Amino acid sequence: MSREQIALKSIHIVGVGLIGGSFALDIRTQYPQVQIFGIDENEAHLDEAIKLQLIHAKASYEDLSKAEMVILAIPVDAAILKLPTILESINDHALVMDVGSTKLPICRLVQDHPKRRNFLATHPIAGTEFSGPKAAMPKLYENKTLIISEVEKTAFKLQERALKLFSDLGMRIRYMNPEAHDKHIAYVSHLSHISSFMLGKTVMEKEKNERDIFDMAGSGFASTVRLAKSSPAMWSPIFKQNKENVIETLEEYIHNLTHFKTMMEQDDFEAIFDEMQNTNHIKDILNGIK
Amino acid sequence: MSREQIALKSIHIVGVGLIGGSFALDIRTQYPQVQIFGIDENEAHLDEAIKLQLIHAKASYEDLSKAEMVILAIPVDAAILKLPTILESINDHALVMDVGSTKLPICRLVQDHPKRRNFLATHPIAGTEFSGPKAAMPKLYENKTLIISEVEKTAFKLQERALKLFSDLGMRIRYMNPEAHDKHIAYVSHLSHISSFMLGKTVMEKEKNERDIFDMAGSGFASTVRLAKSSPAMWSPIFKQNKENVIETLEEYIHNLTHFKTMMEQDDFEAIFDEMQNTNHIKDILNGIK
Repeated sequence: MSREQIALKSIHIVGVGLIGGSFALDIRTQYPQVQIFGIDENEAHLDEAIKLQLIHAKASYEDLSKAEMVILAIPVDAAILKLPTILESINDHALVMDVGSTKLPICRLVQDHPKRRNFLATHPIAGTEFSGPKAAMPKLYENKTLIISEVEKTAFKLQERALKLFSDLGMRIRYMNPEAHDKHIAYVSHLSHISSFMLGKTVMEKEKNERDIFDMAGSGFASTVRLAKSSPAMWSPIFKQNKENVIETLEEYIHNLTHFKTMMEQDDFEAIFDEMQNTNHIKDILNGIK
Repeated sequence: MSREQIALKSIHIVGVGLIGGSFALDIRTQYPQVQIFGIDENEAHLDEAIKLQLIHAKASYEDLSKAEMVILAIPVDAAILKLPTILESINDHALVMDVGSTKLPICRLVQDHPKRRNFLATHPIAGTEFSGPKAAMPKLYENKTLIISEVEKTAFKLQERALKLFSDLGMRIRYMNPEAHDKHIAYVSHLSHISSFMLGKTVMEKEKNERDIFDMAGSGFASTVRLAKSSPAMWSPIFKQNKENVIETLEEYIHNLTHFKTMMEQDDFEAIFDEMQNTNHIKDILNGIK
């Protein structure tokens, strides 16, 4: 164990849901000496987080003056609203990290903040379609990718403290500027959620009699539509903050679907075969994803 | 064990891939006394099926005069071509069942066939994104739905023989006319495959550097794009045979995606929130799917 680890006495987690709660679980296992405090607007979630042994105790924003490390794990719209207050509350040696699915708006927000060097912008590529403290699970972050944006703007000692934590949780670190992050993640994450939500909507609209869906839908449908169970409170603000990139992915996706429809209308099933065969290559890419 | 089961001495499976091979595996376990013959245009697949202990021996279409039960598990375009030959080869007491993902074209094809009463049109809602004999897996059909179309057109004794088999494999039987089957399955299965293929295509087109996808894509993307690994040889003919229904689902899906894009362009994220919340209801439907 490094000196840094032993030195760390507490972590404050703002938002004790799936993401924050899962950090809490692994941190408790990894650093038994660290006291974990939870901050959440939802009092019932805090009580639940204590009961589920995610956090040791409740805290409030006022307590952050004593914080050493703060993980900000609330929806991205709320994160933007709370981050300035948090930065003003903390002392000069504290580290604040957000874990949101958009990086440009939050990086822009704090670019000229006097405490910019106390902030690290991160995005762990991990999660499930569930939310709230009950959704927290151990080892959610093991072997998962963590994107860090603008690492150079964070104080060197605080970078080190963060990297140690993420590496102890088993994560692979990648560095990316916020513009590139938001553009790429629109394709591999945000678009998947919309395609899934709209698939669910299309089928539900058609099949008024739910027993019919239930009986005829197999594991393939379940897999494709899984993300349509995701939390609107988490995802609506992500789409808003990444509006331009998401619209671009949607345009391309709609274009490709329309082209597929045209090939069908023209009875060009050879072209459809080729199109599917080319896309089969996704196998090689997916093989690397847990 | 019923008299019918003991009476059955052999089963011929045409197409020893994922679907036919998985039937072979469970039938071998369930009926150790039954001899399983494989017929396949791909000689290497037959050798593999013997090596993998899916089938006991190879057979040819000429051997079908001795068949008691034939399972036709080849792509739906090939099934249409082969079924008449098979019906002409079999004796009056044999049962032939197809297991394809479209039911109207095959039912129409044989509607006036002199051996119509020897045929049963079925669709087991089961599978994976893999194909070939290696993809065969035990208990693929357990607790899965089997749709049967036009059951009344099959000889009563042969209906009984089929139902006994499917029930012994643990399947839930549902009856549906071929028109309704093809319309409904377009929504819950065929559209999912296209949405997944086009999602894969959209992301691959954008992300020329595959390492970037690999690093940023998480389990959500993997789940949504899983079906894009499916076999074009199996799926292209399904889209062709179910062209009208599939085009209708695509139109509605594209309409919903376009509407989502419009809401984003108009900054109407409240409406987007509501839309997602309404679709969250898919949870209750999916809870029933294995």
